Amino acid sequence: MSTSDSLVNAAGREVPAEVNGRRTVPYAGVGGHRPSGRKAGPPIRSCADYPPDGDKRVAKEVLPLKEGLKRALDAAGAKDGMSIGTHHHFRNGDLVANALFDAAKELGLKGLRWYPSASFPCHAHLLPYLEDGTISHVEGSLNGPLGDYCSRGRMLPHLGVLRSHGGRWQAIQDGELRVDLAFVAAPTADAFGNATGDRGPSACGLLGFALADSLYADHVTVVTDHLVPFPCVPWQIQGQNVDQVVVVDRVGDPEKIVSGTTRVTRSPDRLLIAEYVARFVRDAGIMRDGFSFQAGAGGISLAFASFLREYMRDAGVKAGFVRGGSTRILVEMLEEGLTPYILDGQTFDLEGVRSMRENPGHVATSPFTSYNHHGKGNFASMVDVVVLGATEVDVDFGANVATHSDGRMLHGIGGWQNCLFSKCTVLAVPSVRDRIPVIVDRVTTLCGPGELVDVVATEHGLCINPRREDLQEAMRGSDVPLLDIHELKERVERLCGGPPAPPRLGDEFVAAIQWVDGTTLDGVRRVLD
Amino acid sequence: MSTSDSLVNAAGREVPAEVNGRRTVPYAGVGGHRPSGRKAGPPIRSCADYPPDGDKRVAKEVLPLKEGLKRALDAAGAKDGMSIGTHHHFRNGDLVANALFDAAKELGLKGLRWYPSASFPCHAHLLPYLEDGTISHVEGSLNGPLGDYCSRGRMLPHLGVLRSHGGRWQAIQDGELRVDLAFVAAPTADAFGNATGDRGPSACGLLGFALADSLYADHVTVVTDHLVPFPCVPWQIQGQNVDQVVVVDRVGDPEKIVSGTTRVTRSPDRLLIAEYVARFVRDAGIMRDGFSFQAGAGGISLAFASFLREYMRDAGVKAGFVRGGSTRILVEMLEEGLTPYILDGQTFDLEGVRSMRENPGHVATSPFTSYNHHGKGNFASMVDVVVLGATEVDVDFGANVATHSDGRMLHGIGGWQNCLFSKCTVLAVPSVRDRIPVIVDRVTTLCGPGELVDVVATEHGLCINPRREDLQEAMRGSDVPLLDIHELKERVERLCGGPPAPPRLGDEFVAAIQWVDGTTLDGVRRVLD
Repeated sequence: MSTSDSLVNAAGREVPAEVNGRRTVPYAGVGGHRPSGRKAGPPIRSCADYPPDGDKRVAKEVLPLKEGLKRALDAAGAKDGMSIGTHHHFRNGDLVANALFDAAKELGLKGLRWYPSASFPCHAHLLPYLEDGTISHVEGSLNGPLGDYCSRGRMLPHLGVLRSHGGRWQAIQDGELRVDLAFVAAPTADAFGNATGDRGPSACGLLGFALADSLYADHVTVVTDHLVPFPCVPWQIQGQNVDQVVVVDRVGDPEKIVSGTTRVTRSPDRLLIAEYVARFVRDAGIMRDGFSFQAGAGGISLAFASFLREYMRDAGVKAGFVRGGSTRILVEMLEEGLTPYILDGQTFDLEGVRSMRENPGHVATSPFTSYNHHGKGNFASMVDVVVLGATEVDVDFGANVATHSDGRMLHGIGGWQNCLFSKCTVLAVPSVRDRIPVIVDRVTTLCGPGELVDVVATEHGLCINPRREDLQEAMRGSDVPLLDIHELKERVERLCGGPPAPPRLGDEFVAAIQWVDGTTLDGVRRVLD
Repeated sequence: MSTSDSLVNAAGREVPAEVNGRRTVPYAGVGGHRPSGRKAGPPIRSCADYPPDGDKRVAKEVLPLKEGLKRALDAAGAKDGMSIGTHHHFRNGDLVANALFDAAKELGLKGLRWYPSASFPCHAHLLPYLEDGTISHVEGSLNGPLGDYCSRGRMLPHLGVLRSHGGRWQAIQDGELRVDLAFVAAPTADAFGNATGDRGPSACGLLGFALADSLYADHVTVVTDHLVPFPCVPWQIQGQNVDQVVVVDRVGDPEKIVSGTTRVTRSPDRLLIAEYVARFVRDAGIMRDGFSFQAGAGGISLAFASFLREYMRDAGVKAGFVRGGSTRILVEMLEEGLTPYILDGQTFDLEGVRSMRENPGHVATSPFTSYNHHGKGNFASMVDVVVLGATEVDVDFGANVATHSDGRMLHGIGGWQNCLFSKCTVLAVPSVRDRIPVIVDRVTTLCGPGELVDVVATEHGLCINPRREDLQEAMRGSDVPLLDIHELKERVERLCGGPPAPPRLGDEFVAAIQWVDGTTLDGVRRVLD
């Protein structure tokens, strides 16, 4: 089967017929695909094969990171072609994944499959290993350079596979993605393998993205730079799932979990968008005692949270919970009593880390609790309103978060798809970026079906999805400008002199966009230079 | 195959060849059996089949317990022959299991298999349902009346199956014991199914014994008498594993978690035993900074903890952690700073419940973390010294905890087998009970292999297992009396006028004693009237 063989799915999108040896299950509509079978089970182990005193350290001494990982790979029985799971709680400050493949290269391993929960620009370090065959391909969010590499067809014949955070859990849980060796970068751990992210010199908050790996992988290594006596409490990762522990000099740079985007925007247009969204949440009656919201760490989201906080204070309204990615603003809301709980999936700044350690109401979650679509419900659908970004939105409210309109795949999906299940999903985007319209007829890559997007907010005002007559009704009397999305598109095209230029794409698929249920929502085609 | 067909295992014990339709795997020695295969997986579900707003209540109103359970059984699709999991955190104050089978009876269900984590005297209420076929048989600890019933062959052709707490986890995890419908009695829960035991009017501490059921059962119902707004924090049971929630008037009587045995003994002999054990722990050098211990809730164990606390204070020694079952004494030690952590599997009194709710160092554990033998290690083997009871101990240090010397099976195994993996296991027993010797040539029922028992402590002093020359050596210079176990046996037989009368047993097996690895360690034969 060639990488250009395709199927057409229920969204009318052409998707690759096969992805990395697996037959594609085409997207069947929201809620249209029902899974069967039973969850995957990792191998049954016996305590007889682990040290009774609980000391699972590969070496008693502290090792340089790469040396420690070499010892760990060796002790884990690493072989060519194995799949490796890593997590991204250090975001652009991750040191472990790079050193791991440095170690793998030195051991002469080949054809490794890398299944990170996400990759970041720092992982451009790994491009030579994709070139020389140490790594055969990557399944996981590919932010920046790795996405660009994949876009250009450099990973072919393998395809990149983009899954949401919940989708990665689903795929591992359902046995579609089998992790041979998991490596958990742990800011604090004991020799038994209990580990936590909320303390230690490299504290990054939580380790929820590594939880699926710890539960389902065949072999689990905890890599820590801060060993504490048993028991390491809290045990975000449980030692009973861990095969070995390696103590190294440094696992990550927590300063870099603060990405460039984690700052309140100063752009007047973006501040206006944030204000419109906050006013919408207030005026539509969503902001009421016991309500909940989630906003990301982008500049607009942070500004939105800041505005909403003011409105909550003014109205004397308290939330029932807020969802993190946590930031200083959410922590202040918690400590001020504006919410009793932050249900946090990822700390986006060091105040979030501190709060998770100190505040009982700052609760660590995981993709299982928050996002897994193949569970008995999850938190995402219980959230009253979520504010997200997008690279493109089309007139049917379908949205793209992975590629730019030139076709380059530069962003992961993260929790974005999962959050669309919120009771009210707002995409808060500038209508134009770099003089290219963001509102389009048909998004280059479909990452989120339009029926799940309720509001598109730009500096021109709000476009409410016609399916949500209740929201249209609720906004009567509000002075936030409302407009039809077609009208917005035309307005933006007039400003930009027309729609975006069509991308120059080759015939081959280079990546698949998975939906939350493991079906394939869209295919990404090679970008021609 | 008849219920008297047998195999002989590595301990030289005759065990039933088949148990409730499963071929027996005979005990192969400590660490002698290695599992294969992969862990069981529950059915994969989809969020599309659960309410997006997270409200999984069967009814919006509070229902009388039995009525609520009827509705829940009905909604769960209960069918004849299904297996039902319940937990015993309310111990003798459990109301749910009884009402559940009252409801099942009224629904006309037949042949249900009951898999409780343990049963208590209060469950004598269920004997008529075993008689009339509502319940076909029970797999799980059978304390008191149900054990007596089983002993007399009244459950035949089905066998009782006694597993340790860790063994129940192992059996469920490994797919040997498949729970169709799990019912979690929850002192506090939200409508999504997040549940905790540490708060609410019926607070019983933790819900760890229900954790395996919640993870592996096909269908999970949370039964609560205290509904709180989402999110119920902590979520000892995760709503993502829960199918439905039923709100009822009352789930249990937490006053009755304090069993009759949970009092410091006043018997001079038993106080002496407790003191000998505490002096042993001190004099053998086990009591040192960072050490750990576990003692149960029996009178001797409580007195031991009380003595040890004094010695720790006197010597200025602090533990690294102590294991619960928690009691007031352990809580006082935590709050006094004698230990930073109680790693607790079961609260044995209301001070334990309070402390678990209030003290971050009072950590809820589960049979997975503490006891599961088919994990990558567990806490039990990391404990420096554990003090346990026994009904009989033989001259090879093998011990019985399930039957009396007349053959009647009146006690469950609990965590007892799992705790034998401690670095030093002390059986603290009176040498005589009701004028019957406790020290015997060969225990009626073997529940624990002698090689795992390090010390037998009676009012005559300590018998140290000859395999533990290090302990013999360490006790030189101590004034705690030491004696040979054969000498002790003779002394006791002289006092009692001979060994216990042999039990009057029939040919059929009525129960199997499982070892921690799922093999069968011994068979229990029918007691003749």
